Amino acid sequence: MNSFGTNFRVSIWGESHGEAVGITIDGCPPGIEITDECFSHDISRRKSGAKGTTPRIEPDRPMVLSGIYNNHTTGAPITVMVNNTNTRSKDYKDITYRPGHSDFVAEKKYKGFTDPRGGGHFSGRLTLGLVIAGVIAKKIVNNINIKAEIIEIGGSTDFDSAINKAIENNNSIGGIVECIASNIPVGLGEPFFDSVESVISHAVFSIPAIKGIEFGSGFESAKMTGLQHNDLIVDKSGKTETNNAGGINGGITNGNDIIFRVAVKPTSSIAAEQSTLNKKNNKIEPFKLIGRHDACIALRVPVVLEAVTAIALADLKQRAY
Amino acid sequence: MNSFGTNFRVSIWGESHGEAVGITIDGCPPGIEITDECFSHDISRRKSGAKGTTPRIEPDRPMVLSGIYNNHTTGAPITVMVNNTNTRSKDYKDITYRPGHSDFVAEKKYKGFTDPRGGGHFSGRLTLGLVIAGVIAKKIVNNINIKAEIIEIGGSTDFDSAINKAIENNNSIGGIVECIASNIPVGLGEPFFDSVESVISHAVFSIPAIKGIEFGSGFESAKMTGLQHNDLIVDKSGKTETNNAGGINGGITNGNDIIFRVAVKPTSSIAAEQSTLNKKNNKIEPFKLIGRHDACIALRVPVVLEAVTAIALADLKQRAY
Amino acid sequence: MNSFGTNFRVSIWGESHGEAVGITIDGCPPGIEITDECFSHDISRRKSGAKGTTPRIEPDRPMVLSGIYNNHTTGAPITVMVNNTNTRSKDYKDITYRPGHSDFVAEKKYKGFTDPRGGGHFSGRLTLGLVIAGVIAKKIVNNINIKAEIIEIGGSTDFDSAINKAIENNNSIGGIVECIASNIPVGLGEPFFDSVESVISHAVFSIPAIKGIEFGSGFESAKMTGLQHNDLIVDKSGKTETNNAGGINGGITNGNDIIFRVAVKPTSSIAAEQSTLNKKNNKIEPFKLIGRHDACIALRVPVVLEAVTAIALADLKQRAY
Amino acid sequence: MNSFGTNFRVSIWGESHGEAVGITIDGCPPGIEITDECFSHDISRRKSGAKGTTPRIEPDRPMVLSGIYNNHTTGAPITVMVNNTNTRSKDYKDITYRPGHSDFVAEKKYKGFTDPRGGGHFSGRLTLGLVIAGVIAKKIVNNINIKAEIIEIGGSTDFDSAINKAIENNNSIGGIVECIASNIPVGLGEPFFDSVESVISHAVFSIPAIKGIEFGSGFESAKMTGLQHNDLIVDKSGKTETNNAGGINGGITNGNDIIFRVAVKPTSSIAAEQSTLNKKNNKIEPFKLIGRHDACIALRVPVVLEAVTAIALADLKQRAY
Repeated sequence: MNSFGTNFRVSIWGESHGEAVGITIDGCPPGIEITDECFSHDISRRKSGAKGTTPRIEPDRPMVLSGIYNNHTTGAPITVMVNNTNTRSKDYKDITYRPGHSDFVAEKKYKGFTDPRGGGHFSGRLTLGLVIAGVIAKKIVNNINIKAEIIEIGGSTDFDSAINKAIENNNSIGGIVECIASNIPVGLGEPFFDSVESVISHAVFSIPAIKGIEFGSGFESAKMTGLQHNDLIVDKSGKTETNNAGGINGGITNGNDIIFRVAVKPTSSIAAEQSTLNKKNNKIEPFKLIGRHDACIALRVPVVLEAVTAIALADLKQRAY
Repeated sequence: MNSFGTNFRVSIWGESHGEAVGITIDGCPPGIEITDECFSHDISRRKSGAKGTTPRIEPDRPMVLSGIYNNHTTGAPITVMVNNTNTRSKDYKDITYRPGHSDFVAEKKYKGFTDPRGGGHFSGRLTLGLVIAGVIAKKIVNNINIKAEIIEIGGSTDFDSAINKAIENNNSIGGIVECIASNIPVGLGEPFFDSVESVISHAVFSIPAIKGIEFGSGFESAKMTGLQHNDLIVDKSGKTETNNAGGINGGITNGNDIIFRVAVKPTSSIAAEQSTLNKKNNKIEPFKLIGRHDACIALRVPVVLEAVTAIALADLKQRAY
Repeated sequence: MNSFGTNFRVSIWGESHGEAVGITIDGCPPGIEITDECFSHDISRRKSGAKGTTPRIEPDRPMVLSGIYNNHTTGAPITVMVNNTNTRSKDYKDITYRPGHSDFVAEKKYKGFTDPRGGGHFSGRLTLGLVIAGVIAKKIVNNINIKAEIIEIGGSTDFDSAINKAIENNNSIGGIVECIASNIPVGLGEPFFDSVESVISHAVFSIPAIKGIEFGSGFESAKMTGLQHNDLIVDKSGKTETNNAGGINGGITNGNDIIFRVAVKPTSSIAAEQSTLNKKNNKIEPFKLIGRHDACIALRVPVVLEAVTAIALADLKQRAY
Repeated sequence: MNSFGTNFRVSIWGESHGEAVGITIDGCPPGIEITDECFSHDISRRKSGAKGTTPRIEPDRPMVLSGIYNNHTTGAPITVMVNNTNTRSKDYKDITYRPGHSDFVAEKKYKGFTDPRGGGHFSGRLTLGLVIAGVIAKKIVNNINIKAEIIEIGGSTDFDSAINKAIENNNSIGGIVECIASNIPVGLGEPFFDSVESVISHAVFSIPAIKGIEFGSGFESAKMTGLQHNDLIVDKSGKTETNNAGGINGGITNGNDIIFRVAVKPTSSIAAEQSTLNKKNNKIEPFKLIGRHDACIALRVPVVLEAVTAIALADLKQRAY
């Protein structure tokens, strides 16, 4: 459903072109200082406007509706809403199944009642709620530093050239984002089913466009031998010589950095000609998508990835006896 | 915790060298035919004995304790237990943190009270419960075919030679397993947080040794353009020309095959010399591991991967209104 | 936490004197017609203004923020917010632990960070969210009729005189509300822990001021013999001669009416003189409560009781395979 | 479903005449000392054999299958099983809907696949698992004392005479059990939906035969005025002059004793003549029940009531940040 977490639980709601998007955060301890400014930094990191991102720019001012009093969390659920102001619904008037998007599945799953405007509830705009919850989650896991960054675009580390090429061709391009969480206590994660990898990956795959995740040496591990892969413990803190495990053994943090990478597919919305069906099952060819899009959605992923990582770790932190 | 699923929920328990391992399956509809023979096939696929797998061979006879009456599920919780018979605990007498294993984190997380014998609750032996639940889950999603197989060992498709080399060197080797679920209805998966990828990956990372997962073109997507990656719909069933999405858009099944691959790290237990610490924080060097181990644990993953996929899909199936 | 339900899940948020109160409803099937008018009837039933209820009258206009499009549910989470407009915070400036209220426990549990204004998150005003969710839940269980009414105030069926006496004495008075749900299918409820009684009582005790619940003949059962209490089945529909079980056997609906009664304590807020402590642990005597209060909060319970009953039954309905 | 609890979670399974009944306990902290003897006292309190209880006497030896090592909890799930040894299935050969029992609803809900022997999964025998989990839960909430006792049978405090009369008439009789938990910390319970009353009542109504619950002055509150009912705080510990609230304000413990009472219906199984239908919808009249039964099931409720109270409080205790 639209909630995630056990003891630190976020519930997300909203549609791209509806009244607002928002999130309700339950299980936040009382006494954490939160001012409006706390949200600004990460919200602006998520914003579009840079090359390769959509020109749809919204003020994205978070309105706190509950759970914060005198600039501190109260222990009651925190609801934060962001109004949708810059919605150009005419772009989406005709319901055609945009290639790569959820339009087709949404139409079928919800029996024709889905809000189709801008992807409705499936829109990437909902990640704004994740970023807001992430700001609070980062304060809960406050000694842990979480940092995500793009490490590859279109298979290359020359990001600019890859993006320029995509823009020139009315096309889009994928990328890889790496996230490192450092200063990790030993013992986060719960066997059997709530391993750190399970909980983080569950949260990560809620971010639209993510198609893969790997921890530590990840898919490279499949080519390695045990002697190469085993991380030898060097002192009683649990520090290891190498970190092929990505800081996790048996699903539990071992005190070394949590490291993982995610694969971000190229933005599905492209201006280049494609073909598809519309709601009446008529073939539409050529299909040309009008609207404002990100040439490389991976560019906007890092702050969202940090947010869901913080949310996942905050939940695991609050599960300890 | 040790439960997974909302409407079809499995709860796993047991230790490698304790009385038994088992699983309780809640939410199974009544009237599904289950005989002892139903379990045999998948349990024997999981068994060791082949080259590259541990010589620890146990009868692994499942005992149904509840929930099945007159060879049919009753709707009440099904508990199935498998006794541990072939436990050579003397192999594990001294508590040394075996490299790559959970011994260190288990000791710290559980404050010295963990059962250390054979990895205790962290042992791969617990996957027997997953296989048992998978047998039932496969019957629930009965029109869906789920098939997993090894596609690469040690970076190569010449599996024999990769395994032989590992055995010769007292070493181990990793591999990649691919799972394909076909004949999928449109509409499984729940936004925002219970996307098919989220739910499957959550379950998959509970299998020991898995370090990465990718859906459809996965990490390759990160190198692709939108024009290459977008799967064009060709008819009203939702069939697409290509299947880069791995059968999932916006977290929801689109009717095409669900395809994903997992990276399996090399078995941590190897006979080759390593170094580590023991429980008293003394350096142990050289450290030589005695016991019975799999040279390539990936060989035993396919049936377990099918099982957790079936469990995840059964849960999603039972969430529809 | 602040969520209730498995497949039909409501998450409540807000404070009495904060920006707004609201609720998010997840798991609502698509295609249910909802207009603003749908909410009006039950919201106005909950409203104060009648004799025995607080003169705090607010417009209580529900604003739908998500999940409804073209006057139909979309299948996405529905968030409805009601602004707080008539908040007279000066009434609550000094933090004194009002007798019978949650002020003391809230202060301690949330380490001094609770929002104390009007009871904050503990306020009966939050039941507005329940009523809103109840309107939708009633549509989900649409063939079931749910009707609650006061059957006793202050131990008497002469409600007026009991209330008048309480008002004259600057006092308050308790009451009993009965709820009957009819046209019930056989088979709602889940063993072992989600019996109909368990799920309804869980929801009911979230309504402030409820101190007891009994199903069917309830506490009277404790005085009865088996011959008196057993309801004999008269036909294959499951209809029984008597309904001492309140429509529930073994936690499962048997097709007869679900009948239960709740005890509502007298409103804690009274103008009569009492004594208490303040936040600094100083004795305050006499303590006189200023503000606007209900002389008999039971008067406002029926519509809320119907709402939580509908919410509980909607959740149970959506759990069937 | 068949699980209860968030951070301390019990999952129950088994049937009256199946192989075994049992329970899996997840979220138990490591290091709690548990020997076989720990279970004996409460299991023997639950046992039958006294006047008014069934002559079905079973050894009821708990077998620990997992989660306990060297007589201490390990932090892994604890599964405890009790074999069914004394099952006289011939008593239940013909499927007739016993009045007051779940036979009819079980048959319908599970489409004819339910295990009908002795009530199957609906049998009171499953409360054995609750008692076992209660033993562990009591150790988790170790400073809290939980004590339940019968206070009324058949409306009278002369228990013997009420029971004798029921036995003489081949009849059964109901009763009231009171539970007091003392030495309670301030702050257990979670708004909005997980009030102490909500969580306890949810667990309590899973005990077969319970038809009502009231906290503090309970249904008597409905007759009281605010001045009578409000408990005045007398010192900074939160101690109150009276305890009409039963130790709970706003759903949160206030440091005073938690007090509640439950109504236990008369045992449904009686030897006196009744009428009913069988599975083929034929009227059976007279219907005479053969088998071994409790004349007053309330006699066996206290230890089970303590157990579920301990389970509920253990879960709430482990939810604190």
